[in-house]
Amino acid sequence: MKTNPVIECILSHKSIRNFSDQNPDQETVETIVRAGQQAPFAGQSYSILLRRDRSKNPWKAPLFFIVCWDKHKFELIMNERGWTNLSSDLNSFMMGMQDVCYVAQNMVIAGRSLGLGSCFIGTALGRADKISEEFKLPSRVLPLVQFAMGYPIEEPPVRPRYPLEFSLIEEKYPDMDKDMIHRAMKEMDDGYLAQDYYRKANAKIPLIGDREEKFTYDNYSWTEHICRKMGQRRSDPEKLLKTFKRRGFDLLKKGNKPSSN
Amino acid sequence: MKTNPVIECILSHKSIRNFSDQNPDQETVETIVRAGQQAPFAGQSYSILLRRDRSKNPWKAPLFFIVCWDKHKFELIMNERGWTNLSSDLNSFMMGMQDVCYVAQNMVIAGRSLGLGSCFIGTALGRADKISEEFKLPSRVLPLVQFAMGYPIEEPPVRPRYPLEFSLIEEKYPDMDKDMIHRAMKEMDDGYLAQDYYRKANAKIPLIGDREEKFTYDNYSWTEHICRKMGQRRSDPEKLLKTFKRRGFDLLKKGNKPSSN
Repeated sequence: MKTNPVIECILSHKSIRNFSDQNPDQETVETIVRAGQQAPFAGQSYSILLRRDRSKNPWKAPLFFIVCWDKHKFELIMNERGWTNLSSDLNSFMMGMQDVCYVAQNMVIAGRSLGLGSCFIGTALGRADKISEEFKLPSRVLPLVQFAMGYPIEEPPVRPRYPLEFSLIEEKYPDMDKDMIHRAMKEMDDGYLAQDYYRKANAKIPLIGDREEKFTYDNYSWTEHICRKMGQRRSDPEKLLKTFKRRGFDLLKKGNKPSSN
Repeated sequence: MKTNPVIECILSHKSIRNFSDQNPDQETVETIVRAGQQAPFAGQSYSILLRRDRSKNPWKAPLFFIVCWDKHKFELIMNERGWTNLSSDLNSFMMGMQDVCYVAQNMVIAGRSLGLGSCFIGTALGRADKISEEFKLPSRVLPLVQFAMGYPIEEPPVRPRYPLEFSLIEEKYPDMDKDMIHRAMKEMDDGYLAQDYYRKANAKIPLIGDREEKFTYDNYSWTEHICRKMGQRRSDPEKLLKTFKRRGFDLLKKGNKPSSN
């Protein structure tokens, strides 16, 4: 493995959920946002929302960032130039999600390099209406990813990842036989168990229905946890599609017809 | 602005499309992939494809990475544990796109820190079938983002970005009046013109239909360019939805019903 300060910073990443009372100064905040802006972009179709009210922020973090997919301001530019956006929302989204995520990940890394920890929280879509109301977002701006940030008062170990053979593929996707699957599961499960992660977090997901609980914190680990996350709640895309719609996006609609000029 | 080697690395990012004959050694490649793996994750639902055949790679780059959304291997794990994935594909995608993009952006930054340049190429979805055939991808693995990487033989300037006021929003989304829009357009357009970017790249997009060409490389810049990109081709989500379907994903379908155990 090669190393340098950037690699060290990236490899030392872990989620932080306990923050000190210190508030990052304005210079620090702007540096982090500038680092986000400099991410590679498809169309710069993002906006970064920032909330500094600890009482409202997850884990009372001093900073809570919500990165939105923003077609509104780009369409204002198109309008200024006499153009109409003909790209369908689903097509645009495939670029916009990249704009959003690259910005967010740059901010997370830049933050860590300045001593700040952070934690992503699933997706912002479930709270899109509330966030939109709070920040008075216009139509065509959709909260997508979110993370809390601040100075850590915890220094947890780096969490495990899949083995390299399970992540990097050259030439041909491997036949993932039981041995390979078990090696990947073991790497994750032993890693989290060695850190006693789920016991410390008291994070066991209760079983629904008639499944019998066979796990204690001595053997409950990552693969069981994430199976319970994905295996117990049937989700319906309709709800998400409606969220997109309320924010002015229709993922199933063709792009606009060209307007006559 | 604060600075350190990580911030410097991030802020010096630019796309690289001209690569030297030097091939990155295996240690370098593995370091970059490890840096990708250590990105924050929702479900590690990604796989990284790597092609080293320069003759097939964009810009004859020594490395071409395609990061896929991969539910296949996770569902094998669920199966081993006796679970069925109940999450709808659209819901899963909102997490999976984050897994994919955070990995990719970590790799781009780690690469830069090791002296390698890179360039993202739109989305991999348009070539999903070909890539799947080449790497023999199983169903439920979808090529999503792609980038070329190698040692640069060019050192272009850092490209412009929107002003901070156009990207960072606190409390309330601003009323984007004409002045604000024009400031953002000017920042981008003057920035690219000062670098003579489009002339050097010979990248003016021809007008379709009866629009009259009023731009030369003296005034053709970013906003006009991206308007022509988004304003001349009406796209249809149906094609994308079909691509997802051929790869085993149905973005409109409810999650599976729970299986009896």
